[in-house]
Amino acid sequence: MTSPGISRTRKADLTRLFQPETIAHVGASPRPAVGRFSFTKYLLTMNYPGRLYPVNPKYEEVHGLRCYPSLADIPDDVDLAILAVPSLQCASALREAPQGKVKFVIIHTSGFGEIRKAELEKELLELAQAKGFRIIGPNCMGIYSQEGRVGFWQDHWEIVNKPGSVGFISQSGGHAVNLLMGGMDTGIFFNKVISLGNQLDLTIHEVLEYMGKDPAIGVIGIYVEDVRDGNRFLGLLKDIVPGKPVVVWKGGTSAVGKEAVLSHTGSLAGDEAVFSAAMRQAGALLVDNSDHMVRLLRLLQPQFGLPAGSRLAIFSPGGGNTVSACDLFSSQPGLSLPPFGAETREKLKTLLPEENVDIRNPVDPGATGAVRIDQLMRVVSQDPQIDAILVLIGVDYLSNIKGEESRALAAEMISDLIATTVKQVKKPITVLLQQVRQNHEDFDRYRRIMLSKFIEKRIPWIDGSFKDAAQIYAQVAQYRNHLARLRQRESFPDGREKGSF
Amino acid sequence: MTSPGISRTRKADLTRLFQPETIAHVGASPRPAVGRFSFTKYLLTMNYPGRLYPVNPKYEEVHGLRCYPSLADIPDDVDLAILAVPSLQCASALREAPQGKVKFVIIHTSGFGEIRKAELEKELLELAQAKGFRIIGPNCMGIYSQEGRVGFWQDHWEIVNKPGSVGFISQSGGHAVNLLMGGMDTGIFFNKVISLGNQLDLTIHEVLEYMGKDPAIGVIGIYVEDVRDGNRFLGLLKDIVPGKPVVVWKGGTSAVGKEAVLSHTGSLAGDEAVFSAAMRQAGALLVDNSDHMVRLLRLLQPQFGLPAGSRLAIFSPGGGNTVSACDLFSSQPGLSLPPFGAETREKLKTLLPEENVDIRNPVDPGATGAVRIDQLMRVVSQDPQIDAILVLIGVDYLSNIKGEESRALAAEMISDLIATTVKQVKKPITVLLQQVRQNHEDFDRYRRIMLSKFIEKRIPWIDGSFKDAAQIYAQVAQYRNHLARLRQRESFPDGREKGSF
Repeated sequence: MTSPGISRTRKADLTRLFQPETIAHVGASPRPAVGRFSFTKYLLTMNYPGRLYPVNPKYEEVHGLRCYPSLADIPDDVDLAILAVPSLQCASALREAPQGKVKFVIIHTSGFGEIRKAELEKELLELAQAKGFRIIGPNCMGIYSQEGRVGFWQDHWEIVNKPGSVGFISQSGGHAVNLLMGGMDTGIFFNKVISLGNQLDLTIHEVLEYMGKDPAIGVIGIYVEDVRDGNRFLGLLKDIVPGKPVVVWKGGTSAVGKEAVLSHTGSLAGDEAVFSAAMRQAGALLVDNSDHMVRLLRLLQPQFGLPAGSRLAIFSPGGGNTVSACDLFSSQPGLSLPPFGAETREKLKTLLPEENVDIRNPVDPGATGAVRIDQLMRVVSQDPQIDAILVLIGVDYLSNIKGEESRALAAEMISDLIATTVKQVKKPITVLLQQVRQNHEDFDRYRRIMLSKFIEKRIPWIDGSFKDAAQIYAQVAQYRNHLARLRQRESFPDGREKGSF
Repeated sequence: MTSPGISRTRKADLTRLFQPETIAHVGASPRPAVGRFSFTKYLLTMNYPGRLYPVNPKYEEVHGLRCYPSLADIPDDVDLAILAVPSLQCASALREAPQGKVKFVIIHTSGFGEIRKAELEKELLELAQAKGFRIIGPNCMGIYSQEGRVGFWQDHWEIVNKPGSVGFISQSGGHAVNLLMGGMDTGIFFNKVISLGNQLDLTIHEVLEYMGKDPAIGVIGIYVEDVRDGNRFLGLLKDIVPGKPVVVWKGGTSAVGKEAVLSHTGSLAGDEAVFSAAMRQAGALLVDNSDHMVRLLRLLQPQFGLPAGSRLAIFSPGGGNTVSACDLFSSQPGLSLPPFGAETREKLKTLLPEENVDIRNPVDPGATGAVRIDQLMRVVSQDPQIDAILVLIGVDYLSNIKGEESRALAAEMISDLIATTVKQVKKPITVLLQQVRQNHEDFDRYRRIMLSKFIEKRIPWIDGSFKDAAQIYAQVAQYRNHLARLRQRESFPDGREKGSF
C-alpha cells in the first residue's frame, strides 16, 4: 500500500516530543463533557513543568491559565501542540501558526470522514512540510512521558512520579489507555508511551528506532495493525532485539479483523504467516491479546533480569495443581521441570511432611506456612539442575487464619517474607499470585495487600492461570535462546543471515 | 492397568451418599489444627438436617455434640462415615463396625505410604465387601450436596441455601475445593460435587452414570487423571451428552504430568491423542485448566439456554477492541461475525455518533452511556442474521463519572439496565465483564457491585479476555453442532456409528 508517510525514511529526533518545554492545547475548555479529553487539566494534575497554553477563542482562561484565541497568538515557540478540535478545524488551526513555531502536532481528533478524508490529509501533510512540524495521528491519544511529565488520561498523575523503563507504541488509542491502566497498578513502570493512530506522518518506524536507541527504555511493546515498509520494520527489530526485548501484538490477523482495521485506522494489514515468521526471525515476542502483553512487559523489565536457563522448579500446593503445572509447563517448547538432584531431595525430605515420600518437581509443600516455603525455595535454589523458580501464592490460603485483621496482617507478613527470599536467593524467583475466591471484599483486599508489597519490593509476579504463566515463561526462554544464537553467530560470523520479508 | 476397582461394573445407588440421614465423622476434634478438616463443624454451620455423630475416643463432646469412641458405639445406622484419621487407623476403625451398619465411607486420609499401600488397600476392599459399604477415596475431600446440606469446606455454608444444577466430579481434592470456591462467588450454582481421590472402590463411572440420570443435574464437569475402562467411560458420555453437556478436564496429559499423576493418585494416564479424539466423538467439551472449566460450567447452566446458532454480534467500545474481537472470534472454528442487514444498519446509524459512518459488526458504541447500548442491542437483536450478542462492559468506564459514590450508584444502575435488556430481548446476550485497572479498591468495589447484580438477576457473563470468551463461545457452538448431528442421525439411523477407544 502506498501512503503519504511511506516514502520517507526520516529519522526524527523525538526528544522534544517526549520532553516538550512548551505545550499548546488547542480546543481547551473549562467544562467537562462526555468524550472530551481535558489535556490541560491532566497536565496540571501531573505537574507538567513546562509552559502550558490552552487555546480556544471562546475563553480567556481555562483552569486558571490564560487561554489564547489561536496558536499564532501564543507568545512563545510551541514544542508540542495537541489538537482536540473537530476534523474540519484542524488545518485552519495549524495554518495560522507561523513557519517554525510548532515542532510536533498531536491530532487527537478522529472521524476525518470518508469523503473529505483524502483532501484533509493532503492539506495537513502539506502544512507539516511548509511549516516544519511533524504530525502524530490523527485519531490518537498522543503521548505519555514519565520524564517529560506529559500524559493523555486523567489518572496519569498517579504514576508520573514512578520512573520506569518500559516503552509502548500503539496504533490503537484504546489499547494505549488500557495498557497503561492495566500496567500502572500492577508493577509495570512506564517510561514512554505513544499512540500513533492513522500514522499520517510520524510512523511506527521512527518511534521504534528512537526507543531502540533510548537508553531510558529497556523493553518495548508494540501494538500494530498495519506494517508499512515491512523490510524496514524487520531491520529495526533485528537491530534492537539483541539489546532489549520487543513484544509485538499484531491486530487484524483475521480476514474479518483486516476489514475492521481498515475501518479503524484506514490501513491494510498484510499476510499473517509471513509476518509471524519474520517476527520469529527477528527474535520479537508475539502476543495476541492485551493480558498477555501486560504479563510479558512486566516480567521483561530489566530490573528482574532474564533467567539464565529454562529448567524450572515449581512450588504449588495440592496434587491436582502439581499435575496441572506439569502438563502446562512441560508442553511448552523449551521449558523443562527436571528432577532434583539427590542432595536436594535429601534436604527437602527433612522439610516436607512424612506423606511426601516421593520428592518431585513441582513441589507440593502441602498445608504449610510461608516460613517453610521460604526454606524449601532456598534448598531448591542451590540445585545446579534448576535455573529459576516459580512459586504459586494463593490469596485463598489465608482463609485458614481466623479473623479479618489477622488475615490482613498475615497477607502482609507472608508477602514480606517471600519478597525477602526472592531478594536473597541467587536464582530468579517469580510469584504466581492467584485468587480463587472472587467477588469477595476481604479476598480482594488481601490480594491488594500482597500485590502492593510485591510491587513495592520489585518482585517479579504473574497473574492468570498456570497456562498463562507457562506461555510467558516459554516466550522468555525463546528470547533468551535467540540471544544465545546471536552470540554464537558473532563468534562464527560467516553463517550470519540477512533476512527480509 | 488392572486395579481392584475395575473388574466391577456395579451400579451404585448414590442417593444416600448425597443425601445421608446420618453422618459419622471419625477423627473429630474440638480443636483446630493446621491441615485438619473440621467436618463436624462445617456440617453444623451448614445446618445439616440429619443426625451427626463425632467419633473420637479422646473426647466426650465435640462442638456440643456427644462424641463416640468408635463407629460400633453409635446407636444408629450410618449412611455416611467420614474418616479423617491416620492411614494405619482406617482399617481398624472400620473393622469394629457391624456388617450392614455403614453404607458409604469417605476416606479423607492421604499418604497411605508406598510400602504398606497395597496391603492397606486390599484390607479396606475386603472390609468393604464383608461389611457391605462403599469406599470413596482414599485421598479425597468427599462430597458437597446442596440438597443434602453436606460439604467439605469451611465456606460451604455460604452457598448451601442456593439451589443449582451443576455437578462436578473430581479426582483431585484441590481442584474440587478451588472449583467450588471459584464458582460459588461468580454465579455457578452447584447441585452435587464429589472428590474421588484414588478411586480404590467407587469410580468415576458410577458417579457419572448417577449424575447423568439425576434430573437435578443439568451440566456435568469432570476432572480426571486416569480413565480406567475407557470404553465404559466413553459409552457413558455418549449416553449422557445428548441430554446434558459434559465438560472434561484431563490431568496428566504430558509425559512429566503422567509421572506426577502416578505420584498424586497412583494411577496411570493413557494416550492423549486417543483420549481427545474419543471425547470429540462423544461430544464432550475438553478444557485444560480450571479457569476455562469455571467459565464453561457457568455459561452451560440450563437456565441460560444454548444460543440457537453461532452468528454473533459483539458490542465493544474502542477501535482497537473491535479489531481484537474480530481477530479472536473469527479465528475460532464455527463462529462468525456476519455483517448486519440494511435495515439494522439504518437503525443503528440514527443511534451512533456521526463519525461512525461505517456501521460494522463488532459495534463500537463510542463514548456513550448504558441507555444507548441498551437501544443498540435491541436493534441488533432483531436482525435475522444474528443468533446471539456479546457485550463488553468495562468497569473502568465508570472513571468518567465524578465521585466515588456516584460511580457506585452508576455501577448499580448500568448493570440493572443491562440485566433488563438481557431479560427482554429475544436473543441470548452474554456480558463480558472486564476490569482493566487492578489493585485498586474502588474499581474492585464497582466490579463486585456489577457482578453481584448479574448473578442476582441470572445474567450469563464471562470473565477473562476476548480470547477466553472466543474459546468458550466456540466450544458452546461445537456442542450445539454435535447435538444437531445427533438429531440428524436419529432421522437417518442407518448411519449411526458405535465408537470405542
